[in-house]
Amino acid sequence: MSRAWTAEAFYTQFEEPPALAEYTQHVREFVARHDAENRNVVLITSGGTTVPLEKNVVRFLDNFSAGTRGAASAEYFLEAGYAVIFMSRQHSQFPFTRWYSHTTNPLFDLLKEPAEGEDTVSVSQDHVQGLLPILRAYHQATRRGRLLTVPFVTVTEYLFLLRNVSQAMAPLGHRGMHYLAAAVSDFFVPADKLSEHKIQSSDQSLTLRLEPVPKVLGTLVDSWAPDAYVVSFKLETDGDLLIPKAESSLRKYGHQLVIGNLLQRRKYEIVLVEPHDHTWIRLPTPPAVPPHEIERDIVAAIAERHQAWIASV
Amino acid sequence: MSRAWTAEAFYTQFEEPPALAEYTQHVREFVARHDAENRNVVLITSGGTTVPLEKNVVRFLDNFSAGTRGAASAEYFLEAGYAVIFMSRQHSQFPFTRWYSHTTNPLFDLLKEPAEGEDTVSVSQDHVQGLLPILRAYHQATRRGRLLTVPFVTVTEYLFLLRNVSQAMAPLGHRGMHYLAAAVSDFFVPADKLSEHKIQSSDQSLTLRLEPVPKVLGTLVDSWAPDAYVVSFKLETDGDLLIPKAESSLRKYGHQLVIGNLLQRRKYEIVLVEPHDHTWIRLPTPPAVPPHEIERDIVAAIAERHQAWIASV
Repeated sequence: MSRAWTAEAFYTQFEEPPALAEYTQHVREFVARHDAENRNVVLITSGGTTVPLEKNVVRFLDNFSAGTRGAASAEYFLEAGYAVIFMSRQHSQFPFTRWYSHTTNPLFDLLKEPAEGEDTVSVSQDHVQGLLPILRAYHQATRRGRLLTVPFVTVTEYLFLLRNVSQAMAPLGHRGMHYLAAAVSDFFVPADKLSEHKIQSSDQSLTLRLEPVPKVLGTLVDSWAPDAYVVSFKLETDGDLLIPKAESSLRKYGHQLVIGNLLQRRKYEIVLVEPHDHTWIRLPTPPAVPPHEIERDIVAAIAERHQAWIASV
Repeated sequence: MSRAWTAEAFYTQFEEPPALAEYTQHVREFVARHDAENRNVVLITSGGTTVPLEKNVVRFLDNFSAGTRGAASAEYFLEAGYAVIFMSRQHSQFPFTRWYSHTTNPLFDLLKEPAEGEDTVSVSQDHVQGLLPILRAYHQATRRGRLLTVPFVTVTEYLFLLRNVSQAMAPLGHRGMHYLAAAVSDFFVPADKLSEHKIQSSDQSLTLRLEPVPKVLGTLVDSWAPDAYVVSFKLETDGDLLIPKAESSLRKYGHQLVIGNLLQRRKYEIVLVEPHDHTWIRLPTPPAVPPHEIERDIVAAIAERHQAWIASV
């Protein structure tokens, strides 16, 4: 038998994450500061959420998402003058520092040890030109207080934070934007079904029963952030389902825009689906040098729509 | 009905990972070079493995593991004179660079922009003392060719790599060590049961049937690396199971040592379980300043046993 969990019932079965109150307070202060300066504020959610299979969690379900879409978008929103609440999966891609990850381009490889008798560690000269604009943009965002980080791991943490952060953004009215790029689990194990200890391995098969996570997008649009500009994402692997599912989501939740993307082509092609229109964004082939990220075009298109929408009220 | 997969049957159902031949060749060359210099070589496996639920993978099962144990141990094995094959989950913790992750201690925060008219990016002076020993050890390991990296993501990739790397290490005889710290999935979805596309969300519950991953430790000990010193790990959340399960693993697979640890206390307390003995290692409380990592003690204890074992043959 399947129970369809309502958002309310979902929240009551789990305890509030310990850091929830603290993060909520940070967001309130961040919002008040930028509200006072009439700045647009975007909440970007990024990365995948986990679904623990045990209370003392060893195993979990996860969603494929490095968080590149969200981290790249954050950089372009900052460039466009937004203040950014970056609510992301712990250890997923992070704005600016993502260019120097320890696996693809370790900063340690670019740092020179001091010469004999000196004590300065510096970036080798041939990398300064590439690093400097990124470093400057990072320092500028942090120095000016334009970037607030809120981390999550589990889908439960994500859903508590999404509710509180959305409510804390309500004072922004139409200047608030929700850019929901996180890959949120569709299924979870209810609190009362969680195994206390690590599920023991054996030579037997294991059957897991998962229940659907309630869709909170409707509650967000109707109650938490009724005046905000809300952008959701739809990731599919079957091209035939992409636009029908995006349109059905818009009809169901009544928000402003769905960004549709296919797993295989997500870095080169997306579609902006609006109630009476859809617009493809495709990167030119062959790719531009220096690399042109599709998030630059996405953010430009969305910021323009957001501005028109603010002006229209 | 449950099928118990043998190691052989497991391998035949999946295609070889595309990069397998290339990594195998890198390991062969690495082993040959250090073998010629009579150096001990340790294979460290680190991080968790994933179990895709779809062929075009959006969702997967994962194991809790940041890879800290493996990454820290790699540093201490290098310090002890070992050459290290670091076979780790992509984006998990990495030796040396782990001290400056973008979430806890971002290097970007330590880098100073150039003064007016200059073009040097350097580490701010108050951080040089902390960074320099780590940077020197990293450069030394890479410059001397003592550290080889082999990445994996899925449990299938892991098992193919483990087989080939172990076989490639066979020429080392007793000087080879296997330090199997990766958190390997116990269950998987057989290739012929994988859904082609993303499992659609719905308001229905989802039932997953997983089958046990074959234990390849026996095959490793008996066939792939019969002369190597083999260390496996046992992670539990229930303290009563820790030593019995470690002892049962030693009896079953016939290897040299199991490192037992409880999820909750793994950073402060572990137990070395050998056929006729077990030895606890506990960090002193209150913790030492500067921080003393338990991996320093683990590696010292294991390297000593490995040396005695090499001498005894």
